[in-house]
Amino acid sequence: MADILSGKEVAKNIKENIKKEVVELNNVGISPTLGILRVGQNSDDIAYEKSILKNCDSVGIVAKVYELEESISTEGLLEIIEKLNQDMDIHGILIFRPLPKHIDEEQINNTISSLKDVDCMNPLNLEKVFEGDMDGFAPCTPKAAMKIMEFYDIPLEGAKVSVVNRSMVVGKPLSMMLLGKNATVTICHSRTKDLKKVTKSSDIVVTALGRAKYFDEGYFNENSVIIDVGISLDKGGNISGDVDFDNVNTKVKSITPVPGGVGSVTTSILLGHVVVACKHLK
Amino acid sequence: MADILSGKEVAKNIKENIKKEVVELNNVGISPTLGILRVGQNSDDIAYEKSILKNCDSVGIVAKVYELEESISTEGLLEIIEKLNQDMDIHGILIFRPLPKHIDEEQINNTISSLKDVDCMNPLNLEKVFEGDMDGFAPCTPKAAMKIMEFYDIPLEGAKVSVVNRSMVVGKPLSMMLLGKNATVTICHSRTKDLKKVTKSSDIVVTALGRAKYFDEGYFNENSVIIDVGISLDKGGNISGDVDFDNVNTKVKSITPVPGGVGSVTTSILLGHVVVACKHLK
Repeated sequence: MADILSGKEVAKNIKENIKKEVVELNNVGISPTLGILRVGQNSDDIAYEKSILKNCDSVGIVAKVYELEESISTEGLLEIIEKLNQDMDIHGILIFRPLPKHIDEEQINNTISSLKDVDCMNPLNLEKVFEGDMDGFAPCTPKAAMKIMEFYDIPLEGAKVSVVNRSMVVGKPLSMMLLGKNATVTICHSRTKDLKKVTKSSDIVVTALGRAKYFDEGYFNENSVIIDVGISLDKGGNISGDVDFDNVNTKVKSITPVPGGVGSVTTSILLGHVVVACKHLK
Repeated sequence: MADILSGKEVAKNIKENIKKEVVELNNVGISPTLGILRVGQNSDDIAYEKSILKNCDSVGIVAKVYELEESISTEGLLEIIEKLNQDMDIHGILIFRPLPKHIDEEQINNTISSLKDVDCMNPLNLEKVFEGDMDGFAPCTPKAAMKIMEFYDIPLEGAKVSVVNRSMVVGKPLSMMLLGKNATVTICHSRTKDLKKVTKSSDIVVTALGRAKYFDEGYFNENSVIIDVGISLDKGGNISGDVDFDNVNTKVKSITPVPGGVGSVTTSILLGHVVVACKHLK
């Protein structure tokens, strides 16, 4: 049986550290605070908001939700962001995506203060990730994947890693982070020829396809470490990763479950960013 | 014998197109102009400056050199950049590197107008490359490598490409550009294990190590396409690429020579950027 790389364990560990840091900040009169901007009443946004509020609460971070009309203009939204940028009591800013189509997202991203940009939307923070500078705020999902590998002492130095995703929120930033740890990284995608051969000859495979149970045992070897970032519904309507867990589980070295894997860690990365922002700004 | 992928041919072609565009701009009273900032009297800078002036002249681009004292402060340099940013008669800004150690390079890079940043120093332009957006100005060397592959119709879609370099001026931006063409990219570096195996099983190998004749035939296969970005001196004091050209030349499909390869194309990319900047700004 493969080792199960539980994200819940990692998240627990991160949150315990955050809690301590929040107490220390509270002791000097500072309340780390996340400003959440929600435009409209999208049910996914509302569900995500609830989960973030609960998570913030669990570590002592204050969350302030700014509910905005679906019809708000780009200028209107920019004005609110500018206000939050200047508000010394707000340390992190999170804006739910996707925004309504009439909003100029590029302007929004450029306007969020890079110092409060806990969700890594400002190009200055993205460029830092590209450069391998981990001082800025990196996107939460790839950072969660990295945290899992760090927590479970998965050796990255010289490791052959396949990343099956080339997006700006997962594959590209993750590849940069892996390079920073001296892994040899192959970035794969839908046009990759003979993907099976690439992943099978890798030490670590990170998948983020969003296709339930796409990868069976044929894609891996007995020493494979699998980090499954995909979350989608399988034919039976159950939440599933990209990897056919039941098929693969007995034939590889270790694997993250879905649910309970990378997704469980993402929000704790965001919470950690709020504390970091708070410390930099205080 | 391998096909020789001459950079000179590519540069000639690019320059011919630039010349035509310059004439068109001149016809409507616009002179595409590059502002060159040189701090101090570094002999490498002076040699590069001469070559750029000659190249600008050959296509009709005006070049203005701003010679600055080695002792100039960051503030002093920023002031000059701001002036050039606002000068409607300057379309591109090039600053020779490395700058003296007392200069805050990050501030300099952030200050160059992203619209005039023909050498891709502003993080906003770098982030665009990361994103795969080719609308900004990409670093000249990786773009030159891409131009050579384009000129010689080297298929990139689905191709396995090894990039042996992970710097911000070559390896990382090049990898993003290759991904944009749907290649499967493996980013290699000094810590890569069994590099030979990786390069030998690739369709295309791009090397930028800066070690003369490091790669012999053992790193390639008979269908390898080699793009050699390295330029250094071999034991005999001759300019050489990373690849042992004489050893490899008869055993691969095609190869760029050094000199006369990627390096020959780089300046024409820069000239092209000046024309693009000029058109956007007019």
